[in-house]
Amino acid sequence: MEFVAREIDIGSRNPMVILNGEDAEELGVNPLDRVQIRHDDRTVIGIVEVTEELVPVGSLGVTRRLGHVQGYVDVTVAPRPTAVHYIRKKLEDVELERDEIASIVREIHENRLNDVELGAYVCGAYTNGLSMAETTALAESMAEVGETLDWQAAVVGDKHSIGGVPGNRVTPVVVPIVAAADVTIPKTSSRAVTSPAGTADTMEVFCEVEFELAEIREIVEKTGGCMVWGGSVSLSPVDDKIIRVENPLSIDPPGQIIASVLSKKKAAGSTHVVIDLPYGEGAKIDDLSAARELAEDFKRVGDHLGLELACTITRGTQPIGRGIGPVLEARDVLAVLDGADPRELRLKSVRIANVLLELCGVEPTAAEILDSGRALAKFREIVAAQRGDPDVERADLVPGGEIHTVTADREGVVVQVDNGLVSDVARRAGAPRDRRAGIYLHRQVGEAVARVDDLFTIHAEKASKLADATALVERTEPVRVRTGEEALVERV
Amino acid sequence: MEFVAREIDIGSRNPMVILNGEDAEELGVNPLDRVQIRHDDRTVIGIVEVTEELVPVGSLGVTRRLGHVQGYVDVTVAPRPTAVHYIRKKLEDVELERDEIASIVREIHENRLNDVELGAYVCGAYTNGLSMAETTALAESMAEVGETLDWQAAVVGDKHSIGGVPGNRVTPVVVPIVAAADVTIPKTSSRAVTSPAGTADTMEVFCEVEFELAEIREIVEKTGGCMVWGGSVSLSPVDDKIIRVENPLSIDPPGQIIASVLSKKKAAGSTHVVIDLPYGEGAKIDDLSAARELAEDFKRVGDHLGLELACTITRGTQPIGRGIGPVLEARDVLAVLDGADPRELRLKSVRIANVLLELCGVEPTAAEILDSGRALAKFREIVAAQRGDPDVERADLVPGGEIHTVTADREGVVVQVDNGLVSDVARRAGAPRDRRAGIYLHRQVGEAVARVDDLFTIHAEKASKLADATALVERTEPVRVRTGEEALVERV
Repeated sequence: MEFVAREIDIGSRNPMVILNGEDAEELGVNPLDRVQIRHDDRTVIGIVEVTEELVPVGSLGVTRRLGHVQGYVDVTVAPRPTAVHYIRKKLEDVELERDEIASIVREIHENRLNDVELGAYVCGAYTNGLSMAETTALAESMAEVGETLDWQAAVVGDKHSIGGVPGNRVTPVVVPIVAAADVTIPKTSSRAVTSPAGTADTMEVFCEVEFELAEIREIVEKTGGCMVWGGSVSLSPVDDKIIRVENPLSIDPPGQIIASVLSKKKAAGSTHVVIDLPYGEGAKIDDLSAARELAEDFKRVGDHLGLELACTITRGTQPIGRGIGPVLEARDVLAVLDGADPRELRLKSVRIANVLLELCGVEPTAAEILDSGRALAKFREIVAAQRGDPDVERADLVPGGEIHTVTADREGVVVQVDNGLVSDVARRAGAPRDRRAGIYLHRQVGEAVARVDDLFTIHAEKASKLADATALVERTEPVRVRTGEEALVERV
Repeated sequence: MEFVAREIDIGSRNPMVILNGEDAEELGVNPLDRVQIRHDDRTVIGIVEVTEELVPVGSLGVTRRLGHVQGYVDVTVAPRPTAVHYIRKKLEDVELERDEIASIVREIHENRLNDVELGAYVCGAYTNGLSMAETTALAESMAEVGETLDWQAAVVGDKHSIGGVPGNRVTPVVVPIVAAADVTIPKTSSRAVTSPAGTADTMEVFCEVEFELAEIREIVEKTGGCMVWGGSVSLSPVDDKIIRVENPLSIDPPGQIIASVLSKKKAAGSTHVVIDLPYGEGAKIDDLSAARELAEDFKRVGDHLGLELACTITRGTQPIGRGIGPVLEARDVLAVLDGADPRELRLKSVRIANVLLELCGVEPTAAEILDSGRALAKFREIVAAQRGDPDVERADLVPGGEIHTVTADREGVVVQVDNGLVSDVARRAGAPRDRRAGIYLHRQVGEAVARVDDLFTIHAEKASKLADATALVERTEPVRVRTGEEALVERV
C-alpha cells in the first residue's frame, strides 16, 4: 500500500510506525506487528502502533529511529524475525546453536524485535539458563555487532563491577593506581539507569566524560588511562537494549551478565580484566557459593574469548564509601586518593588494583602508589586531559544545601544499611541528575551509636525533593540500629 | 511535579504517558516505568514513554485509555505493580498461590503492566506450565474481573473450539441444531485476529453481530439462541490483553488456553459446554496423546468451576469446510444447513451437536434435526432476530470477482492442505476485512486429481490483493499433489 510518511517524535527508543486504524485493518496488521517500508530504493522495518486520530488515513507516522523517511512510501507486511523462533526454542528449554544466538543478537541490533519478544528472550535466558557454549556465543556475537577498539600496548588492563552496591566508587581510585604503574587502562564506564550514580556521573563532577574515539586515544596516549562514558563509543550496543527490558522485571540472568560484561571488554580491546562480584543480602548475588560459581563461569567464558581474567568476590551488603550521589562520591574518591578514609573504599580499591596489577605481571604495590601520592598525581593528570580542573580540592565539591539528618532513636549498634533503600532515598533527593544530591552515611554496620547520634544526612538541591526523600525515610529504616539484645533476637 | 496534560491519540491499547526527555530525567523515570497522575481528586496510573519534540517540557501527553485527563495535574513515580514479583516467581518455577494469581489478573485488568511484564507472565506460564490449582484460580479470577451473565434456563449449552484450523465454521450449524432441540444456547464468538475469519466475521455476512446485553437477552428469549460478537459484552476482558502479547511469540500455554476459554464460559453463564480440540500437523495441538491430556485438564478445571464439560478431539490437519474467508464460509454453512456438502463440515457439526445434546440430557438427534429442515428454519429465525435477511440464499452470497485458480501440475493424489499457508493466502487476498475475499478448495486430502484439475481458487475484491496472494502461492505449495510413488517416498 502507498502512504505519505512524516516523522513523529515518539518513543525514540523503538523504530515505530504509526498507522491509522483503517489502514492497519486494510493491511491486515496489528499493533506489535512489523511492516516493511520502501523509500528511495531503501527498505526499513518498523514496529506497528495504531492510532485513530494522530495519523490520518493514507498517512504514516514514523519515528526517527527509522532514518529519515519522508514523502511517498510503499508499505508491506514484514516477515516475522527468525529470532522469534529461537526465543521460543529457548523458552522450551532447548540449547541454542551458535548461529541461532547470533541471529537473535543481530535482530536485536537491527531493532527488529518488539518489547514482548525482547522480554521473552530475557525470560528464556533467566528461567532456563544459558549454557557455557551459549554464553560464549552470546558474548562473541554481542561484541561483533558494535565497534571494536585496539591499542598499541600488548597488555591492556580493565576492571568491572557487576554493580548493585551504592557508593561502590573504586574505579576512580583503581585506574590512576594502575596507570601510575605503567599499565595501559582505557576505562569506559556507565551512567546511572536505576541507581543514584554511575562511575561516569561521578567522574563528570571532575571533568568531561563524553569524547570521540580519536580524543579517547589521545587521552590514553598522553596519560596511560582514561575514565570516560562508555556510551560515546558504541561497544556491544545490544547490551543497552537488553538492559532496558531487564529493568522492569528486575531480572538479570547470570549468563547474560557474563556475556554483556565480557562482550564490552572484548570489544574495548582489553586483554587483562578483573571482575568484581559483590555478594550478600541486598547485593545482586545472594551468597558466597553463588558468587564462586559465577566467578568460575566468568573465567571459563573469558578463556574462550582469549581474555586473561580474574574475579574478586567482595562483601556487598552495604554501601562501600560514605557518600552516595555524584558529588558525595567524588568527595570520597578524592579523600582516598589523598591517603585518607573512607577506609572500606581505600581497602577495596587497593585490593582490586593489586589483583589487576598481578594479573598484568606487574608488582602489586597499590598501597605504596597511593601513599606516595603518585595515584593522586595521575588522577589529576587524567582529569586535566579530560578538560577538568586538575587542582580540584575536596572543599570545591559542595553537597546540596537542602539537608535533613536522621539520628539514632536508641543506643546500640548499626546492624544494617539497606542498599536498596539508600539508593531510593538518594534518587528521590535528586541524584544523579542533581549532582549535589544524595546521602552521606555517618555510620556503617558494626559501629556503636549513642542516642541522637547522627546516622545519615540527606542532601538535595531542591526543597521539594528533600521533602520527597524525607517522606520515604520517615516510613522506612535505611540504617537500622538495635540494642545489643535486639540485635541478636528479633521477635516476630 | 506539576504538568499541563493534554490528550494524544497514540497506542490506544495502552495507558501511555508521554513525557519530554528533560522532565523524565527530572522525575527520575525511564520508558516502561509507571507514573501516578493526580487530577480532580482522581488518581490514574500510566506507562511512561519519552519524547524530545512531540510534548514540550512541562507538558504531559496522555492517551485516552487513562480516562479524560486534561489541564493541571500532579505527577509522581508510581510503585512497581505487585504482580511483577509474582511473575518473577513463576519464571523461577515456583507455584503461585491463589491470591498471587488474582493479583496478576487484577493488575493486567487495570492496565498496570507494560508489554515486557505482560509478555514475561505468558513466558513463565509457557515455560514452567500452570498447575491445576493455578489454572483454576486463573479461570476464576479472569471470570470475576469482567461482566457476568445469567439466564432463566437451568441448562445453558455452549461450545468452543481452541482454533487454529481454517474453515472450521461449525458454530453456525451447531447452534441452530441445539436451539431447535429446545436447549438455550447464547453463543458469543470472536472476530479474526490473525486468521482469515472468525465466527463473528462469518455471521456478519448474514446479519448484525454487535448488540447490547439487553438486545442479546431479547434475541435469546425469542429464538433460544444467538450468534453474536463476544467483544460487545465484556466477558473475561483480561483474555484479550493476554492474547495480544501471545500473538507475536505464537505461544499459547495449555493452562492459559483452559483458563481463557473456561473463564469466558463461566462468565457467560453457560452450564453445559463442549470444547473442540483439533489436533495434528498444522493444528495447535501436535498429537493425539497431547489432545487427550488437554481434554482431561479441561474436564478437571471445568469440574472445579461447576461446569458440565465434554471435549471432542478432532482431526485438525486440514481446513474443514471448502471455503475460507467470511462469504466463502457463509456459503458452506448455508449449504450444510440445507442438507448438502461440504461433507466434513456436516459430519463434524452433527457430531459436536450430538455430544452437546447428550451432555444436556437431550436425545442426540442432530442429523434428523438437520435433515428435517428445522435447523435451517432456526438459523433463519436467529438471523432475522439479529436484523439480517431470513430469506438469504446461497446465490446471494457472491465471492470476490478477482480470481486466480491453481491447477494440479501432475496426476496424483492430494497429500496435504497446509493450514498456515491457506490462512496466509486468504489474508493476503483481503480476508477478513474484504468479506468476499478468501480461498475455495476444490480438492481435499486423499482426493485423486488429474493433471490441470483445479486445486483451489483465490477470490479477492481488489486486483492488487489478488496479485499479492498469487505471488505467495507461486513460491509455495498450499495444496500438495504427489504421484502414488512420490506420496510414499520423499527423497531429501
